[in-house]
Amino acid sequence: MKNVRCARCTRCGREYEALPGITTCDCGGILDIQYNYGYIRSVFSRESLADCTDWSMWRYRPFLPVEPDSPAPPLRVGWSPLYRADRLAKALGLRTLYLKDDGLNPTASLKDRASAMAVVKAREAGARTIACSSTGNAASSLAGNAAAAGFETYIFVPSRAPRGKVAQLMIFGAHVISVDGSYEDTFELSRAAIDRWGWYNRNAAINPYLSEGKKTVTLEIMEQLHWRVPDYIALSVGDGCTIAGAWKGLKDLYEAGFIDRLPRLISVQAEGCCPINRALRTGEPWQPMEENTLADSIAVGVPRNAGKALAAVRESNGVAVNVSDGEILEAMRLIGRTQGVFGEPAGVTGTAGVKKALELGLIDPESTVVSIVTGNGLKDTQNGIRAAGEPMTVKPDMDALLSAFEAHHITP
Amino acid sequence: MKNVRCARCTRCGREYEALPGITTCDCGGILDIQYNYGYIRSVFSRESLADCTDWSMWRYRPFLPVEPDSPAPPLRVGWSPLYRADRLAKALGLRTLYLKDDGLNPTASLKDRASAMAVVKAREAGARTIACSSTGNAASSLAGNAAAAGFETYIFVPSRAPRGKVAQLMIFGAHVISVDGSYEDTFELSRAAIDRWGWYNRNAAINPYLSEGKKTVTLEIMEQLHWRVPDYIALSVGDGCTIAGAWKGLKDLYEAGFIDRLPRLISVQAEGCCPINRALRTGEPWQPMEENTLADSIAVGVPRNAGKALAAVRESNGVAVNVSDGEILEAMRLIGRTQGVFGEPAGVTGTAGVKKALELGLIDPESTVVSIVTGNGLKDTQNGIRAAGEPMTVKPDMDALLSAFEAHHITP
Repeated sequence: MKNVRCARCTRCGREYEALPGITTCDCGGILDIQYNYGYIRSVFSRESLADCTDWSMWRYRPFLPVEPDSPAPPLRVGWSPLYRADRLAKALGLRTLYLKDDGLNPTASLKDRASAMAVVKAREAGARTIACSSTGNAASSLAGNAAAAGFETYIFVPSRAPRGKVAQLMIFGAHVISVDGSYEDTFELSRAAIDRWGWYNRNAAINPYLSEGKKTVTLEIMEQLHWRVPDYIALSVGDGCTIAGAWKGLKDLYEAGFIDRLPRLISVQAEGCCPINRALRTGEPWQPMEENTLADSIAVGVPRNAGKALAAVRESNGVAVNVSDGEILEAMRLIGRTQGVFGEPAGVTGTAGVKKALELGLIDPESTVVSIVTGNGLKDTQNGIRAAGEPMTVKPDMDALLSAFEAHHITP
Repeated sequence: MKNVRCARCTRCGREYEALPGITTCDCGGILDIQYNYGYIRSVFSRESLADCTDWSMWRYRPFLPVEPDSPAPPLRVGWSPLYRADRLAKALGLRTLYLKDDGLNPTASLKDRASAMAVVKAREAGARTIACSSTGNAASSLAGNAAAAGFETYIFVPSRAPRGKVAQLMIFGAHVISVDGSYEDTFELSRAAIDRWGWYNRNAAINPYLSEGKKTVTLEIMEQLHWRVPDYIALSVGDGCTIAGAWKGLKDLYEAGFIDRLPRLISVQAEGCCPINRALRTGEPWQPMEENTLADSIAVGVPRNAGKALAAVRESNGVAVNVSDGEILEAMRLIGRTQGVFGEPAGVTGTAGVKKALELGLIDPESTVVSIVTGNGLKDTQNGIRAAGEPMTVKPDMDALLSAFEAHHITP
């Protein structure tokens, strides 16, 4: 990999050769892949990219830590649509808003970007089995991407995982271990099992390659915006890996000369579980929190990648904002009604945060903002119906219909 | 529309001007859009298409009945992935199988292709409100595509519609009328309401433009196969509109010189609801049937487009095959485990039919087959879990995990 220099510890700075099976530093710190931007600049540019006909995350190979001859995995991940959401922007009182619908990835979440990377690196490592713990989306994306590529998977989920995600796991033939405990308990059990059986580790805070997959979401956003840098990019934050990956992509583009300035990040967490945003606000080290939110994908009381996430938001001169569960449900309705996009609770939390940040005066209404919908609402239909209510039920005749319309104050 | 000649009745042959609001013929027959292939050939070819950078269903505009200046609707519909499914082919004992995952459309089904068309034609007709009845996917796709384009919608679904589809409708802000009756009851109530209030009609068997949207699925398949015509294309069949649309796309390509032969269609229905396949087998006119299948999207006892569907399968020298609900659930598991694709029951019925047709000796195992997954399994997670089972639940410690593995005969 001529484009990769090494893997460097984010805590102590120690450097490691970027072998496919690396995990964390001996000091316990999380590793970060370091690139040779001089080399990348010599082989990759906006112009060479424009000729690429691979409409998936693999169009950015020169920015990705994979061997040149590693085949792309079977499922088509990435190049999700970026919508200019004028009706939603108007509803929020914002000048320009774009929505990136990453719920249209193969297993319906942004996590497919990391899982596709895991499949490539597991093959490079010669592994046959991949394991992870997850609140749900990393799990189902690993199960699907690994099944398509012929790997066996062991997947640990907290028992609160929504049924849609569990159904995906089972259909994809994973060995699924539903852990009767918190996400933290689930993570620790997966770690012990991975140590015991030597499976390839797809825990995003341990495997440094995964955020390199996730970063393709911002590479795409910038290409889709024709390299016009927005003022803000808003994301929901749980473990911290996704926002760290998003920032890494932006820095890659900046270092390689694709963009000439960097946007600011908006880190959005749920009020009931916001350890990273609390640390951003107080400047103190982060502390564990309870996991009190219906947005299961970001209900992470002990974020495993807090360090990278905090550094990303701070470096970007970013904004931290928390939203209530009610504001999350409101964002689900609002995005659905104005833009025809159905996001899961954590998937719309970024947009809920944009609304809140505008209300609090934290961002200028004249800004251009990109909000990433990180997961599909079909994964959690219970909260969809909780957000939007039940339909009217009628007997199959016109009189019944007229009565129902009257009762619901509908005048067609 | 220089590419469109007229709309012709499939029953009596009467021709109508292709105005945006046309419905059925005065004789009650369904209309079919007729093209001027000489004109199309003069402006459109494989070569000109290769230069098109619109990776959506609208890349085939010269084959679509829309005004040249009609803007494409907001959601990105089409260009779903076509996977070469070697592991699945091997499991079925088939030489070459491709899977088209149309569950990756914006609202997670093939029906988005028709709803996107409805939105364009409704705008051309000057309408502000669109209505339909549906077993679920046409409904949710109309709700999403219309919401994004700023239309109001009235949507009639049978009360058996799965929760995932209902959640989508409510999130997209549709007026949803859940009808306590069969699909036939639901259809008739929607027809009466549309007559009464004059809404734009998105019932696929009445509005002749919708199957023109659906046909883009076969236009894409052929382009993705580099115009190498497969031996068979397999599809689940309910109302009949989708398979009729698929055939129309193939004939368009043939008439315009893009392909030099036509594949055969495999029409797959559920044993408990197969009026079209029964007519294909007996040669008698179709008769209504009960709607006894868990594949809700094709549980259509009174198919509204039987005529076009029967003609399509017969013209293609096609194959009709029925599958049991158990075979449908088995196909869900098989596709998930081998290819990482999660289809809803009706979405995998085409593939279940390929398996059955091979077992019955109806198709040659040396064939090349394309099977279209018409809807995403996340719309119906209950049947997903019914197909694949529940995960093992463990307390968060290693001894509990070891016991659970032993109980499930898993040796990592």
